[in-house]
Amino acid sequence: MKESTRRRARRRERRSGSPPGSLKPLINQLPLVTVLSDEGVRIIHQASMRLLKEQGVMVLDFPPARETFREHGAQVEDDLVRIDEDTLMHFVRQAPASFTQLARKHDNNVQIGGNHMVFAPVYGPPFVSDLDGGRRRASIEDFRNFVRMAYLCPHMHHSGGTLVEPNDVDVRERHLDMLLAHITLSDKAFMGSVTHADNARDTVTLARILLGADAIEENPAAISIINASSPLRFDDRMLGALEVYARARQAVIVTPFIIAGAMSPSSVAATLAQQNAEALFGICYAQMLNSGTPCVYGSFLANIDMKSGAPCFGTGENALALYATAQMARHYSLPYRSGGNLTAARTPGAQAGYESAATMLPTVQAGTNFVLHAAGWLEGGLISSYEKFILDAEMCGMLVRMVGGITLSDEDFAWDAFDEVGPGNHFLGSEHTMRHYTTAFYQQTVFSMDNYELWEEKGSPDSYKLANSRWKQMLKEYEPPTLDEAIAEEMQAFVAQRRNELRDRKPRTEWRTS
Amino acid sequence: MKESTRRRARRRERRSGSPPGSLKPLINQLPLVTVLSDEGVRIIHQASMRLLKEQGVMVLDFPPARETFREHGAQVEDDLVRIDEDTLMHFVRQAPASFTQLARKHDNNVQIGGNHMVFAPVYGPPFVSDLDGGRRRASIEDFRNFVRMAYLCPHMHHSGGTLVEPNDVDVRERHLDMLLAHITLSDKAFMGSVTHADNARDTVTLARILLGADAIEENPAAISIINASSPLRFDDRMLGALEVYARARQAVIVTPFIIAGAMSPSSVAATLAQQNAEALFGICYAQMLNSGTPCVYGSFLANIDMKSGAPCFGTGENALALYATAQMARHYSLPYRSGGNLTAARTPGAQAGYESAATMLPTVQAGTNFVLHAAGWLEGGLISSYEKFILDAEMCGMLVRMVGGITLSDEDFAWDAFDEVGPGNHFLGSEHTMRHYTTAFYQQTVFSMDNYELWEEKGSPDSYKLANSRWKQMLKEYEPPTLDEAIAEEMQAFVAQRRNELRDRKPRTEWRTS
Repeated sequence: MKESTRRRARRRERRSGSPPGSLKPLINQLPLVTVLSDEGVRIIHQASMRLLKEQGVMVLDFPPARETFREHGAQVEDDLVRIDEDTLMHFVRQAPASFTQLARKHDNNVQIGGNHMVFAPVYGPPFVSDLDGGRRRASIEDFRNFVRMAYLCPHMHHSGGTLVEPNDVDVRERHLDMLLAHITLSDKAFMGSVTHADNARDTVTLARILLGADAIEENPAAISIINASSPLRFDDRMLGALEVYARARQAVIVTPFIIAGAMSPSSVAATLAQQNAEALFGICYAQMLNSGTPCVYGSFLANIDMKSGAPCFGTGENALALYATAQMARHYSLPYRSGGNLTAARTPGAQAGYESAATMLPTVQAGTNFVLHAAGWLEGGLISSYEKFILDAEMCGMLVRMVGGITLSDEDFAWDAFDEVGPGNHFLGSEHTMRHYTTAFYQQTVFSMDNYELWEEKGSPDSYKLANSRWKQMLKEYEPPTLDEAIAEEMQAFVAQRRNELRDRKPRTEWRTS
Repeated sequence: MKESTRRRARRRERRSGSPPGSLKPLINQLPLVTVLSDEGVRIIHQASMRLLKEQGVMVLDFPPARETFREHGAQVEDDLVRIDEDTLMHFVRQAPASFTQLARKHDNNVQIGGNHMVFAPVYGPPFVSDLDGGRRRASIEDFRNFVRMAYLCPHMHHSGGTLVEPNDVDVRERHLDMLLAHITLSDKAFMGSVTHADNARDTVTLARILLGADAIEENPAAISIINASSPLRFDDRMLGALEVYARARQAVIVTPFIIAGAMSPSSVAATLAQQNAEALFGICYAQMLNSGTPCVYGSFLANIDMKSGAPCFGTGENALALYATAQMARHYSLPYRSGGNLTAARTPGAQAGYESAATMLPTVQAGTNFVLHAAGWLEGGLISSYEKFILDAEMCGMLVRMVGGITLSDEDFAWDAFDEVGPGNHFLGSEHTMRHYTTAFYQQTVFSMDNYELWEEKGSPDSYKLANSRWKQMLKEYEPPTLDEAIAEEMQAFVAQRRNELRDRKPRTEWRTS
């Protein structure tokens, strides 16, 4: 191997093995997969418009939203808001097609929209599990561990949000501890709290302290999940948080939460129409509040198991819906959130693998811009699993290679290798292989290709066991990124003030950023 | 629920839960996934033509093939056959775009080509494994068990070929026992033997006895894998079998067997060009022997793990190659074989699940017409696993739903359900749900949606354990399909004659079918 070749190979290796916290943007080079014709997209759009005009959306316990809709031309009758296509689309069109979310490390800013993809970890589970201890209620230390793992994982572009529910912290203060963990233990972008309008305000205040009020007005520093309470319903908790974020111009992911067959009819078409109505309704509201607010068209869509009533993941129906929803989002030029490594399984075994891959591959092929639950999700979102995080990250790594597509340069065709090797001989030692062997193919970190004998010698470890060793190793090696001391102190002071207010049940005082 | 509705629902249920041995053709309704532009396809085609003209293909120990190529205008020099684009394509174009393979039960005939897909079980492993006994050398009884399972599985459209290597039968006679098992224990279409030209002749003779000499000349009754001994090499064993099948007008799947990085250069582009050259070369030869012989463009393509030298499955590189190869096959209007539920894992755990799904989903989305290894494959093809067969079949069932696409009728939009339920309420009890609940979504057989508590009560079974119960249940319930007695007797007489010849090392006598 020539010296110049080796240098080039080393440079390439360095680029692919990113150091912790330094991100390589993930850009999908592939043609996006579609399952609907243009006419199909139009039909679903029309069905949604009919639902919004005829059925309407229930706006629960939040009169200001009903008032806003009325002021902007919607029909409001008790809880129900009915809106026509022209009014709705006038506002939906004001949302940007793409935006940048700021991270505290500039290199870790993420682009959300276009052909960019952002992988973020699991969100929401009350439980954690690992091979050693099985399932247990999650703690704030578990939360911090998942922040650390996402920070170290080159395939996670985002620190995520509620990685687990830290049950050992008072529910009123929990959001503060979660936000502090994201901000101090990682330098990747993070998600905002949505459990109360005041929690959203706290998120915005911390983001202002961290990055500056002007900066985060220009580009959002928080991105937050606003769930519809499907079917065709939003409540005060979610709309309250949405209002805070929209007024502060922070990004929201408006996500109908649908188990088809229960929260929507038992068909993909009707579910798509309902989901589309709900997502557009929420996005419309954000634009009414503050035109240009970055909004992501979100989808969380599983289908029901008619036997148990539980959600199913990785099914053909779910994949179809995921692809079709991406087409709807693109139809409105909106960034799209969906998918992840989803499974109903309770342990990271075969079922978890099949279901996760059968969700994650469509997620990527659909051109999903923001992929929540990309690592760690188990038992229909009830468990954040340490091992599953590692296994899912491997899947993410393999898919990163896929979206790069196939390059067709002369070097790619390896003409010199054919000349060197000729018919009937192997290419292992060829110059071309030497030039490319470190980067030619994805290199697995936990999936093992050992032959049976070697594998038996090692104690027959399955991938569950190998993942167990891997996350322990990661946490052992973890070191936090440095944070400016003045910022750290101001954040701590603000959090202390808020803890006092919350403990004393006093109204929230707005923090004056220095 | 109205009576007419219930009747309709029952009819639909009967259709989806096919009785053993009665097949529903699988037709892919989705737009096929592409990863290459038309220009990309052209560039790979040109690269292949350059390889065939400049490098040539080594034809090992089989002078008749070299002679055939010479007669038809190729350049032959020692072992090497070089052929130009015009000559090659003249013959490749003679292969049909689609054909029917006969099964002994007429309803089980399979269409190979167009947007039809055929799932066939695992092929080739010397070992079997199950949860109870682990890995062991396979026997003829294991072989029969896999025939029985494929027969009973509604998602297997084909009985396959060498489901396992029956090591307890003398290698000379093995093919006879395997063919008899396929023919007597199942009524699905099967694959021919390729280990020796005489074994191919025996396959053809058995097919003639079973279905008649004229019938199988019109539509093939055997389909057989002809592997290139990559790179750019074919040997006498495979070309000898190919010759027998082509002259008898039986279908062949010409399949380069490539671990990229070893049997091809370390790049997807070069591997595609080489694979394309090899596949077209074999198909060209079949057409030179007998114009119009049904040929499938085959691909078995993994990439090497540079650390261990073992093949990797389910990677992004493999998926890209699988989609691209489908585009090449379509470019030549040839049916396409690839993919399956492939994995390097040694047990049906998480790694097996991810890798299998990440191969099988692209397999289906690429529009693969003949899917070998759709169920049972483990450890890079060294193990046929009883449990993996069951788990893979579940994956196949989910994908069957996906390729059906999304229908957009008024009934699909469930307008009455929205009117009945209204915003904020669930759809579980609605009339529309009642009309569709048995068929709306795929119903899993081994993947479990049980909640954690119920699952613990059942003894915390993972999918490996559930699959173990399932295959035992299937084999317990198995009953063979009836076979015409005269046919059965003639087959036994022929097989007895061949056993004697093989044991006495006498030359093969052609059987005169009655």
